[in-house]
Amino acid sequence: MAKVHNFSAGPCILPQEVFKEASQSVLDFDNLGLSILEISHRSENFVRVMEEARELVKELLNIPKGYTVLFLQGGASTGFLMAPYNLLTENGTAGYMNTGTWSTKAIKEAKKLGNVDVIVSSEDENFKYIPKDIQIPSGLDYVHYTANNTIYGTQFKKLPQTDNFLVCDMSSDIFSRPVTINAYDIIYAGAQKNIGPAGTTMYIVNEEVFNKSGRDIPSMLDFEVHHKKDSMFNTPSVFAVYVTMLNLRYMKANGGVEAMKKKAQERSEMIYNEIDENPLFEGYANKEDRSSMNATFTLTDESYKEKFDKLWKEANINGIKGHRSVGGYRASMYNALPIESVEALVNVMKKLRS
Amino acid sequence: MAKVHNFSAGPCILPQEVFKEASQSVLDFDNLGLSILEISHRSENFVRVMEEARELVKELLNIPKGYTVLFLQGGASTGFLMAPYNLLTENGTAGYMNTGTWSTKAIKEAKKLGNVDVIVSSEDENFKYIPKDIQIPSGLDYVHYTANNTIYGTQFKKLPQTDNFLVCDMSSDIFSRPVTINAYDIIYAGAQKNIGPAGTTMYIVNEEVFNKSGRDIPSMLDFEVHHKKDSMFNTPSVFAVYVTMLNLRYMKANGGVEAMKKKAQERSEMIYNEIDENPLFEGYANKEDRSSMNATFTLTDESYKEKFDKLWKEANINGIKGHRSVGGYRASMYNALPIESVEALVNVMKKLRS
Repeated sequence: MAKVHNFSAGPCILPQEVFKEASQSVLDFDNLGLSILEISHRSENFVRVMEEARELVKELLNIPKGYTVLFLQGGASTGFLMAPYNLLTENGTAGYMNTGTWSTKAIKEAKKLGNVDVIVSSEDENFKYIPKDIQIPSGLDYVHYTANNTIYGTQFKKLPQTDNFLVCDMSSDIFSRPVTINAYDIIYAGAQKNIGPAGTTMYIVNEEVFNKSGRDIPSMLDFEVHHKKDSMFNTPSVFAVYVTMLNLRYMKANGGVEAMKKKAQERSEMIYNEIDENPLFEGYANKEDRSSMNATFTLTDESYKEKFDKLWKEANINGIKGHRSVGGYRASMYNALPIESVEALVNVMKKLRS
Repeated sequence: MAKVHNFSAGPCILPQEVFKEASQSVLDFDNLGLSILEISHRSENFVRVMEEARELVKELLNIPKGYTVLFLQGGASTGFLMAPYNLLTENGTAGYMNTGTWSTKAIKEAKKLGNVDVIVSSEDENFKYIPKDIQIPSGLDYVHYTANNTIYGTQFKKLPQTDNFLVCDMSSDIFSRPVTINAYDIIYAGAQKNIGPAGTTMYIVNEEVFNKSGRDIPSMLDFEVHHKKDSMFNTPSVFAVYVTMLNLRYMKANGGVEAMKKKAQERSEMIYNEIDENPLFEGYANKEDRSSMNATFTLTDESYKEKFDKLWKEANINGIKGHRSVGGYRASMYNALPIESVEALVNVMKKLRS
């Protein structure tokens, strides 16, 4: 089987070791003579998986007491709804920073439940940059932002300063760098980038968030309900949580988030150097706001498109077509992407100009 | 590896052929050199999977025009919320039949959104029976019932007659018998019984349901939003949908729902015959309401418990411990359970009295 360099924006590459163990467990899990797909989520073997996954998250991100870790369903799009349901009071206001497509969607959902103040936005330049020196008013029910913007290739490098509850969608850069957990009150992330396969969503929630909105929250959207049931209020996405646990184990065995950060820097420096040196390419995002996870770039001369597309396809490169909102190319370089894959892409870019 | 007889209530047994193909695809899917866990949900290979799954449901259940089939996340517990969000108007009333734990939970969630009238209930006899000759008033926004009650082992044998919109939670008996689809407006079912692994939920929705409540529905809870995006409004539970597709293929290749119905009758007759003939056991549910999916029974003499538990464990039988609401034992016999597994259980029951 040919080596494919997988730059998919998510679902994305995970370690080969994880695929091998997951594949085996679909046939026989824990030597039970049963597939991981047919065991009860209440069985001791799966309860152990769920517990280990939650404990590994706490360990890897150095999560202090008073926070709960949950593995739920519904993707970050359900997180867009859970944040206001749990924190936005009937007459209160939530502050949102609009830095891209996902922030825009989060704002849309929050507005269905109450008042939203868009504090800052980079929409004026098609989300090429991250707003700086943001003045966040006091007295908001919470403030929400998107840590990394997959589509535009921008990333917050500094923690926003606020005395309000702070909510962050970290779907696309969680576990790629250390996080000051106690600055946040809700962190949420769809699994399908650095966490695991599609089908589960991770939440890290300050227990002070429980009951803050004063609403009669539907059980499935209530953090306290899921916390009290250890993420087993209803049947969890068993296989997705299992593969997540394997991937978290792999991360821990390979140096944790500090090591992931170093690798992300190596990968992203390699590709951004080539983008800047190569006259045929241009980076999309402002340099100081460039994402270490998603590099967005376009051709300076569209007549090279056919040749470039042929070259990267021949090199077994997959998933670098840019999002329609930006055009051009996007190289997503999540934790499991080997440096050799970035080298393969850079070599193709070099070849184009030679 | 020893043959395990898996009577789990869900997640539950699926065909071995499905496990084998799923396991292979975790290593290499469609000969792409990529795992099913690392491909984009927008890739043509996965879009094909989603389409085939939806088409197979339409074919197997003979679904008429005007209905959409969706694969979403969040389990039936999210369905409890989606039904009222989409159908219950601000001043309207929803009618619910209370036939067990899951109906009770569905009622609780609907009440958070509006008025609920519990039309009938079998709570007076700890849900041992299905109410008969139900008179459903006109003018309700919708009527909701649970087709099969996994915990109590009861099942509706007749279609409730109503001129209101009809909503049904078929989580635990879908695909075990033909369904008169056009009598229903929303059918929903968590995958983890007869459909596939945990992690996705199937909805069959009459398009007339769209926008009926007049509410500003959160996008993730809006059937029309998911319909317009062909179940890809957000990243679906890729692997769960893929395995579901494999299982639907298997069901089609093995005679469809008529064949599944015949097998369900064979399995359930075999075990109910033994329950009725064996003086050491007593069925829990009323005979006429017995489920063909979940047989609930208790020992008539508790002093046999230790011996019986030892015997079935020795026979490699798994998952027959009863739910705490009923006690005793529960044999869940979903589509993929071989008749040999029921024989193994019946043999153990016979052995106990010999």
